[in-house]
Formats: sequence, C-alpha cells, structure tokens
Amino acid sequence: MRMVDIIKKKRDGGKLSKDEIEYFVENYAREDIPDYQASALLMAIFFQDMDDEETVHLTESMVHSGETVDLSAIGGIKVDKHSTGGVGDTTTIILGPLVASCGVPVAKISGRGLGHTGGTLDKLESIDGLTVDLSISEFIGCVKKAGVAVVGATKDLAPADKRLYSLRDVTATVNNISLIASSIMSKKIAAGSDKIVLDVKKGQGAFMKSTEEARELAEAMTDIGNGMGKKTVAVVSNMDQPLGCTVGNSLEVKEAIRTLKGEGPEDLEELCFSLGTQMLMLGGAADDVSEAEEKLRSSMDDGSALDTFEKMIELQGGDPRCVDELHLLPQAEYREEIKAERSGHVKKLNAREVGRSAALLGAGREKKSDIIELSAGIELKKKIGDEVVEGDVLAVMHHNDKQKFEKGKKKLKGAYEFSVKEPKAEPLIYDIIGQEEKR
Amino acid sequence: MRMVDIIKKKRDGGKLSKDEIEYFVENYAREDIPDYQASALLMAIFFQDMDDEETVHLTESMVHSGETVDLSAIGGIKVDKHSTGGVGDTTTIILGPLVASCGVPVAKISGRGLGHTGGTLDKLESIDGLTVDLSISEFIGCVKKAGVAVVGATKDLAPADKRLYSLRDVTATVNNISLIASSIMSKKIAAGSDKIVLDVKKGQGAFMKSTEEARELAEAMTDIGNGMGKKTVAVVSNMDQPLGCTVGNSLEVKEAIRTLKGEGPEDLEELCFSLGTQMLMLGGAADDVSEAEEKLRSSMDDGSALDTFEKMIELQGGDPRCVDELHLLPQAEYREEIKAERSGHVKKLNAREVGRSAALLGAGREKKSDIIELSAGIELKKKIGDEVVEGDVLAVMHHNDKQKFEKGKKKLKGAYEFSVKEPKAEPLIYDIIGQEEKR
Repeated sequence: MRMVDIIKKKRDGGKLSKDEIEYFVENYAREDIPDYQASALLMAIFFQDMDDEETVHLTESMVHSGETVDLSAIGGIKVDKHSTGGVGDTTTIILGPLVASCGVPVAKISGRGLGHTGGTLDKLESIDGLTVDLSISEFIGCVKKAGVAVVGATKDLAPADKRLYSLRDVTATVNNISLIASSIMSKKIAAGSDKIVLDVKKGQGAFMKSTEEARELAEAMTDIGNGMGKKTVAVVSNMDQPLGCTVGNSLEVKEAIRTLKGEGPEDLEELCFSLGTQMLMLGGAADDVSEAEEKLRSSMDDGSALDTFEKMIELQGGDPRCVDELHLLPQAEYREEIKAERSGHVKKLNAREVGRSAALLGAGREKKSDIIELSAGIELKKKIGDEVVEGDVLAVMHHNDKQKFEKGKKKLKGAYEFSVKEPKAEPLIYDIIGQEEKR
Repeated sequence: MRMVDIIKKKRDGGKLSKDEIEYFVENYAREDIPDYQASALLMAIFFQDMDDEETVHLTESMVHSGETVDLSAIGGIKVDKHSTGGVGDTTTIILGPLVASCGVPVAKISGRGLGHTGGTLDKLESIDGLTVDLSISEFIGCVKKAGVAVVGATKDLAPADKRLYSLRDVTATVNNISLIASSIMSKKIAAGSDKIVLDVKKGQGAFMKSTEEARELAEAMTDIGNGMGKKTVAVVSNMDQPLGCTVGNSLEVKEAIRTLKGEGPEDLEELCFSLGTQMLMLGGAADDVSEAEEKLRSSMDDGSALDTFEKMIELQGGDPRCVDELHLLPQAEYREEIKAERSGHVKKLNAREVGRSAALLGAGREKKSDIIELSAGIELKKKIGDEVVEGDVLAVMHHNDKQKFEKGKKKLKGAYEFSVKEPKAEPLIYDIIGQEEKR
C-alpha cells in the first residue's frame, strides 16, 4: 500500500477501505507518513467527504493509535460529556459534580486547547492547589471516591488525532463534518466512558454557524458513538451570545459554584439541566426527563451537588474553601464598568467578539506558550433581549492592565447591537439527537 | 498575510492575487512555508483550478525564486525546445545540432528526472567523456562555438518549482493543467532562451492521455510563454507507441546519430522536422514551413548537422568518434530476440509498457540513487500497423543480466497487441498551437 495511491483514490472520489484508513492512521501516528501527505489527504477529504463507514473506520483507527482508558474499576455506567466549544461555557464544572451527586459517575478527560478563554482545565486551575495532572490510577481513585474527576488528556490518548488536529488547523482542513466528528469521538471513545452526551453548539461563538450544520455534526457523532457501541446523545444548543453571565476563568468558576447552589443564570442552568437529564437517563439514574430533572433539582437544593464538587476539589489537591468563600478565587486588580451609550434593547451580543474581548484582557491563549490571566474576564450585565437605558452598566471588565483593558473595551462595545423594539427570542436548545425517552 | 488564509481562499474557490502567489512561492522556496501547507494548497488548486492570470503569476514567481540564465552574450534568436516526456524520445539530441546547423542557436538546459529510461542528459552521458555539468559561462561558450550545447539544470534555476514538483509527485497533485504548465514554463523561462517550441505528447506513454488534455496543456503553456514575452509554439504529438525504434540510453543516441545522417526511423524524423520547422521559423532562419523543411533536409544531407553534433560533443568533453563508429557507444553484453507467437498485424504497442520493460532491463531510474545501465534497452523491429508472421522478430532486447531480461521480456510481450486486419493508422502530429505561418 502506498500513501500516494490512498490520496489519489480519495481525490478521485473513491471510498477508502478499512485497511487503507488504518494504514494511513497507524503510519501517520508513528511518523512514517509525513505531514505533507496527510494534509493532501485531508484536503481531498474536504472536497470529496467520507461516508459513515469511512468515518467510523477513521475514528476506530485513531482510538487504536494510542491507549484507551480502562474505567472498569469504577462501578456503574460512566457517562462522559463533551461540548464542541463556546464562550462562557462552564457546564462541565457544573455537570460533573451535579450528575455525580445523582449517582452517575463522571470520569472526564479534558483537552487543553487554544481559545478566547482557557478551557475547563484552566478554569479549574483557578482553584488554589488543584491539579488536573493525575495519573490514570489517581484519576480512577478520585472518581471512585467523589463520583467525579476532571483531568487533562495525556499524549497517549488518540495521538493520531492530536497530530492530525494540529495539522488541520494550519492547512484549512478543519471544516469537514467527518473529520470534526471523528476527531472528537476518537478522544471520547479512548477516554473509556460507557456512554456519551454531547453539547453541539451553533452560532457566532461556535464552530458551526448554522443549526443545520450543528445538527449534521451531532448526527455524525451520535452515529459514530452508537456504531462503536457507546450510546451517544447530542443536544444542539445556541451559542450566538455567551452562555451565562461571565467569560473568563476564575469568573466562570464562581458562576459554576453559584449555579451548583441554584443561584446561576437561567440559560446556564437550563442547558445544564438539559445535558444533565440526558446523562442521568443514559447512566440509568432516571427513567424519564421529569425524574431526571427532579433528581438534579434536589441535588442542588440539598447541597449534595456542591458537596460533591468540594470532595472533587479536595481529592484533586485543591482548597475547597473557595466554594463558600468565592473571594479566595483569583481576583483581578481592576474592575471597570462599560456603560450603554444609548437606550433600547440588546439585539445581539456576538459571542465571538465577547470572547475576543476577554482574550485581549488576557483570559485566553493564542499560542501554547501564552500564560493565562486567570482573574481576567467579563461580567455581562445585559444580554440579548434586555432593555437598556443610556448609562446602564452593560458589563464589568475585570483586568490587571490598563492597556489590555482599552483594547478589550473597544472589542466588547462592538459585540453589542441594539434595537428599538424587543428582538425575537431565539431558543437555547434546538434539538436533542438520539434521546430514547421523549420529554 | 498568512498561508492558512491563502489555502482557505483557494479552497473556497477564490482567485489568488499576485501578492498572495508571490508570498507563497517566495516563502516556500526559502522553506519558511512548510511542505504540509504547500501540499494542502496544491490539493485545493487541484479541485478549484487557477485561471490564466493566476497561472502566469505562479510561473513568474517560480522564475523569480531563483536565478535566470542570461544568454545575451550569444548572438541571434535563441530557441529552446521541450518535450513533456515520452518513451524513446530522442528528439532533443537530434534537434539541437540540426537546428543549430541551420543558424538558430540552441542553448538547452535539461532536467534529470526519474523515468522508464534516462533523460536526455543520461543518454548524452553514453558518449565517452561527455559531461553535462558545465558552468553557465562554459555553456555559453559552447553555444557560441558549436551553436548548441545541452547541460544539466542547476539547483538555482526555479528552485521553488523543484521543491513543488517533488511534493506534487508524492501528494497526488501532479495532474493539474495549471500546475504542469507553470512548472514546465518556469524552468523554460528561467533558462533564458528568447523563444520556445514545445512538444506536448498525448497517449499511453505520455502524461496526457487524450488529445483534448494535451491540447489544453499546450494552450496553457503557449499562453504563459506569450504572456511573458517569450513567443511559444506547441506541437501536439502522439505517444501511444514509442517514438522511433529504440528505447534505452546508448541505443537512442545511436538512433539519433542515424537520424542526423538521414537514416532514422520515419516517425522520429517526421517529428523532428515538425519541431525543427517551428524552431527555424521562430529563430528567424526560415519564413515558412517549406523553406524550413528544405534547410533542415539539406543540413542532414550535406553532413553539417552531424558536424555540429561532433563539435558539441567535443566542446562538452566527449569523444566524437562515436558518431562514425557507433560501436564505441556502450554495448550490452547480451542481445535476445523476442519472436511473434502468432501472425497478424501489430494493433497496439503500449509505450508505457515498453518503457517499463526497458526500466526492468536497467535502462531507467526509480529512485534518484539508482544507477542506469546505459547499454540496456530495446530495439523494436515491429511497430503499430506492421504485418507479422509467427516467428518473426518483434524486438531485440539488449541486456546485461538474465534475471532482468526475463522480467523485461514478460513486460514487453504484454505491450504488443495483435489484430487480424490492419489497424487504422493514428496521426503522429495532431496539432500545432501558436504557429504564425500556416503550412
């Protein structure tokens, strides 16, 4: 078998066999196939696509390119959760403890990507002492004791995907449903959970710009998961504006803690309930949506969700006092209010631009080597649909550097659009794909 | 400017600007853009194509990526000749001296590629002592004295093309008219001649399988040449069966010498006359086809073409006695006849398969490091249309190794197809593109 023939076959619209896909992935993972052949194949796939079978074979091959985590020492049905990424999305930090407190173990392995704000791992590292660098046995031990742990991915997990992902990023071959779906699912499957709940976001702050695209991706991923024996459900949700009211690492941890106490923003709680419901149902802790919702609610109300989070923090080496004393989390040196310059309704609040504004404040990472300012970020006081009077505070910017603030402020102001009339409300959740039990 | 944005633009069907193309080529040539981004762009170009303007910009940028040869020290209109490559194609060795002897200087810089048989450079190296590694000033001196010289390309000539060409070969991105045309033309333009005659081959032994494709490539190349101020004419010729009656390095030199003496095979002479006519007309040595043909014929008849060849050999350090004593050229140890196993007419003689057979005998190069057996090759005694009686000699194989012979023999036998009736004759020359004067 020669790689150039595989490229040619796909270029000419052919269907790659299991053997051909395995040959490519195995040899690419061990660097026997160079990047320049891989990128040519990726571009050919961009144009000619892969069918469901090819996508499953690609996913399987990427899983087999590295280690798979064996979670069998943990009792119960382990349910993983993954989001395709948005701005202000702190759901994992809420859902992990919340779902675990309802009896479904959550063993979450997270990646550390680039982005407007840090990822879940960076956010958790706002907590004094907490480490996400556990060995697999420490990780399992933590899940057994607390019901939940969140750790960083090792380089041994789907290494072929890791290499391919970096390559796609610099060769304009990211945007292909099969490649996106297999990339995400290979990591999820290698991570060892039994079932998977996906949060597929659409909108200006998400990868998928339209609901149709998001639904297509959701279907591709659930097909892969189900095809590989891991029951998968996907929630298609809105990411036109940031989720919740904060964007930034320690700010989002605070918001997650408030949400676990039942005091979180409505949209964030709604999405957590939607995803949590699917997780409980897949995990066998609830038979239907209403039972699941009741359990989630009572876990919040009786404090067991928060207790679980404290236990997780402690087991991961962190100081759990921050749960009760939010001021222990990193605080920015300055807070500056951004005020409305006109009256009306917030018509749009471009999630991507808010994210970029937070990044300008220092909350994100452009290069791997960038150091995140955990305390920097934005508190949104007005979101889409809110009425605004000139002079009202739209947002509060948390920062440590006046120059960064000026840049971030300009960007944030551009994220808001106003209208005289109240804009039509968009739903937060568009669809749930693969749910067995109807609401 | 970022390479990933350039890839994305082409991927999405955009037209690349002059600046974008220059940015890519310049940075790629100095290895500031990695192969994996270049190959992604090449594959995007494969699918989205480039228009005439983009193709000219690509060609120009590749010319500017290295040195251009200044031939102004040589008087007269220098006319270059290039073939897109075939099997048994020894026209350059004939045309160089032939055209030069008619007063048009030929300063030919040739590449050393892989192939079923060696290229022009390898063939010339069959001549004892001859070197193709001249400095530019030696090269120019030789053209001034003999009217002709044939040397190897230096790495400084269109280096961006050199890098891109190797990359295309292993990423299934060779087959694109714009890329092929700009690759060939960048080298021709950098080589410094004033005008260019192209031999664009179509058929089983050529790169372009159909006359339409060959014509398309011919038009793309003449457009580039004319667009860059180098008048270019292209002859579209047949390469279904090998050209002439020999395939192999020293065998083809012998055939070239015989042709210069007026004793060559009909098809080879016909093509040389067609190309030579265009070269004389472009070089100002003839006003029309008949005048050109007369000059070429008389140069052959009065021995001045052969004299010119001898002079060139001598100036390039070779022993010119081989011209009169062909046995001084490398001779293979063994000659074995391949006989017809049935009677009929030769219906097909697959040029590619004959080429492969010669390669199996050792006449070609699969890897750069392979050493060519200059004496190995095939003499074709029967070609398309010839009548054959069972037991007739179809071909004579010249070899130095029984094992190689057995493999080559099997391949050669498969190249012949027979029919009861005489097959319909295909023309040798399909079209001449860009000729100002009609026949």
